[in-house]
Amino acid sequence: MCSIKDVAKHANVSVTTVSRVLNDFPNISAKTRQKVLDSITALDYHPDYMARSLSKQQSLIIGVIIPDCSHPFFAELVKHIEMTAENNGYKILLCNSLNDEKKERSYINMLKEKRVAGIIMGSHLINTDFYQSIHRPIITFDRYLGDNIPYIGSDNFTGGQLATQHLIDSGCKSLLHISGSHQLHTQANKRSDGFKITCIENDINYQILEYQYAQLTFDYYYEYIKTTVSPLLSEIDGVFCSNDILAYALYVYCTNHDISVPKTLKIVGYDYCQFTRLLQHPRITTIAQPIPIIGELLSKNIIQMIEDGETHNVYSQTLGVKLVKGITT
Amino acid sequence: MCSIKDVAKHANVSVTTVSRVLNDFPNISAKTRQKVLDSITALDYHPDYMARSLSKQQSLIIGVIIPDCSHPFFAELVKHIEMTAENNGYKILLCNSLNDEKKERSYINMLKEKRVAGIIMGSHLINTDFYQSIHRPIITFDRYLGDNIPYIGSDNFTGGQLATQHLIDSGCKSLLHISGSHQLHTQANKRSDGFKITCIENDINYQILEYQYAQLTFDYYYEYIKTTVSPLLSEIDGVFCSNDILAYALYVYCTNHDISVPKTLKIVGYDYCQFTRLLQHPRITTIAQPIPIIGELLSKNIIQMIEDGETHNVYSQTLGVKLVKGITT
Repeated sequence: MCSIKDVAKHANVSVTTVSRVLNDFPNISAKTRQKVLDSITALDYHPDYMARSLSKQQSLIIGVIIPDCSHPFFAELVKHIEMTAENNGYKILLCNSLNDEKKERSYINMLKEKRVAGIIMGSHLINTDFYQSIHRPIITFDRYLGDNIPYIGSDNFTGGQLATQHLIDSGCKSLLHISGSHQLHTQANKRSDGFKITCIENDINYQILEYQYAQLTFDYYYEYIKTTVSPLLSEIDGVFCSNDILAYALYVYCTNHDISVPKTLKIVGYDYCQFTRLLQHPRITTIAQPIPIIGELLSKNIIQMIEDGETHNVYSQTLGVKLVKGITT
Repeated sequence: MCSIKDVAKHANVSVTTVSRVLNDFPNISAKTRQKVLDSITALDYHPDYMARSLSKQQSLIIGVIIPDCSHPFFAELVKHIEMTAENNGYKILLCNSLNDEKKERSYINMLKEKRVAGIIMGSHLINTDFYQSIHRPIITFDRYLGDNIPYIGSDNFTGGQLATQHLIDSGCKSLLHISGSHQLHTQANKRSDGFKITCIENDINYQILEYQYAQLTFDYYYEYIKTTVSPLLSEIDGVFCSNDILAYALYVYCTNHDISVPKTLKIVGYDYCQFTRLLQHPRITTIAQPIPIIGELLSKNIIQMIEDGETHNVYSQTLGVKLVKGITT
C-alpha cells in the first residue's frame, strides 16, 4: 500500500500539498490540484491513511507568542496571522507572554517536541542565544535573533526619520524620543537611530528616554509620563513616541495639565493600529505600519519554512511606512 | 507496570492532576501534590510513560472561537481566557470565525477527533441544533445552545434596564435601541427585552433596530448609521447601542452632522472594553461588563468540564453589570 509520501513524490509536491488537496483547502492552484489527483489515481492511493501519516509528520499548528493580545496593535496583528494561517490549513496556538519568560520557553519546548510545527515570535524576553541552537522553523516580528531566523517588520529607521523630520519641519527646536528598552535587540530600536541621525543632521537638541518593558497599557504609560517624562516637558517642544497608545497617553497628560498640543508641544506616534484609526479626537500624527501585510507575511513565511523544511528561501522583510498627519503636530 | 490512570485512582484525583504534579504546574495545592507523590511512590510508577498516555487521553488544548480578535472587546476577553488557561496548564487554539460558518464547523470536528479537549464558543453562526448532538465539553459566551452547554455572560437584561432607565431619567421622551440580530439566540438579545420593558413601564415611545451580523468594525457601524439609523434621528432623543464601538460611531456621526450630544441626542453604549476605557473624549456613558471575570470563568469552567468528564457540575453564570456615566448623557 502506498503512502501520502509516495503521492507527494510522484506529483512532485510536498506532503502538505497533498493533504490540502485531500482536505479541499483553498489557495491550491487548479494545476497543482489536478497533478495531485492524477498521482492519487495513478498510485491507487487511499486517503484513509492520510490523516495518521500527516499527523506523525507535523501538527499544522503554529505557535504565536506576543506580549499582550489585548493591545490594539497585537490584536490586529494576530487577526491577520490567524486569517492567513487558516487560509493555508493551519491553526494558531496563542500565547500572551506578558512578563513571563517561562511562557516563551514552554512554547520553544513545544516546538522541539513537534507539538507545534513552527513559531511566530512577537515577544522579546529570552536572550537571543537561546534561539541560536534551535534548528526548527521560527520567524520573528521586529526582532533579530540570528542569521537563520528571519524577521518581518516595518522600516523602523525610515519611520524614525520621517517622524523626526516632520517635527523639525513643523518648527520644533528641541526634541524628545521615548523608545522601548535598547537592551532588547528589537528592530524597533532603529526608530531611535532614525530619530538621532535626523536631529544631528538638522543640528537639533535631542534626548532619548528608554522605558523598560512592562505592561503595554494606557495606565502604565500615563504613570510613566507623570513620573519620568513630565520633568522634561518644559525643555522640549516635540516628542516622537514609539507607539500610539503612549502618544495618546502623553496627549491626555498634556490636556490635563494645560500644555497646549500642538501649539506648545507637538506629538508623533508610531503604529496607526485600529485604536488610532478609530480615534477621532485627537487624530494623532503617526507613522503607519502595514499591520495586515506584516501579519500575512509572518504566516506565509513560517508556513513556507515548515513545508520546505528549510530556512534558506525565507528572507527577512522590511516593509515601507508612511506619515499620517493628524492634529497633534 | 502501572499507568497514570492507576496513580490517579490510587490518589483519588484526575489523570490531569497527576500530570500536572509531574509537570510542576502551578495552582496545585500542597496537599494534593503530596497525595499524588505518595501514590507514585506506593505504586512505583515511572512517569516516563506519562506523556504518551496523557496525549492519548486528551490534548490540554482549548479551542476558542470568537468573531474577531481585533475587536477590543474580544481582544480583552481572549487575553483573560488565555491567562487563566495557561495558569492551569492549558493552551488555546484561537479562531476568528469572521463570517465563515465553515471555520466554526472545523473546530467542532477537532473537538470530535479529540484534537482539542474542549471549546469556548464566542461566535454565533451555526444553528444551535448542530451542537445538541455533541457530547463533549463546550461552553459558550453569551449564548444558549442547549441544556448541557453552559454559558457565561453578563446580566444583559439588567444592563438593558439600567441603560434605558438612565436615558429616561436624563429626560429622553423617545428612544431607539440598536441591537444585534434577534435571529441568533444570543443572551445579548435580553438587552432589548430590558430596553423594551423599561420603555413600556415608563410609557415612552421606542423603536428597535436590528443590525445584521457582519464585520464588527467602526467603518461598518458608521456606514450602517449613515444608511439606516440617520433617517430616524430626527424622531428620537436617546439611543441605547448594543456596544461601545457602535455608540462611538454614532457619536462621531452626530459630531460630523451638527447633532449636539448629549443636548439633542443622548447615547448609551455597552461593554466598557479597553477601547472605551482608553477613550478620553468623549467618555461614553455605557454599561460595564466584567470582561476579565467572564474570560476567567469561561476558562475555569471548560477546564472543569474537561477534567471531570461531566457537565453536570458546571452551571451557566450571569455576571452583574453597572452603569458608567460619561458625557454622552
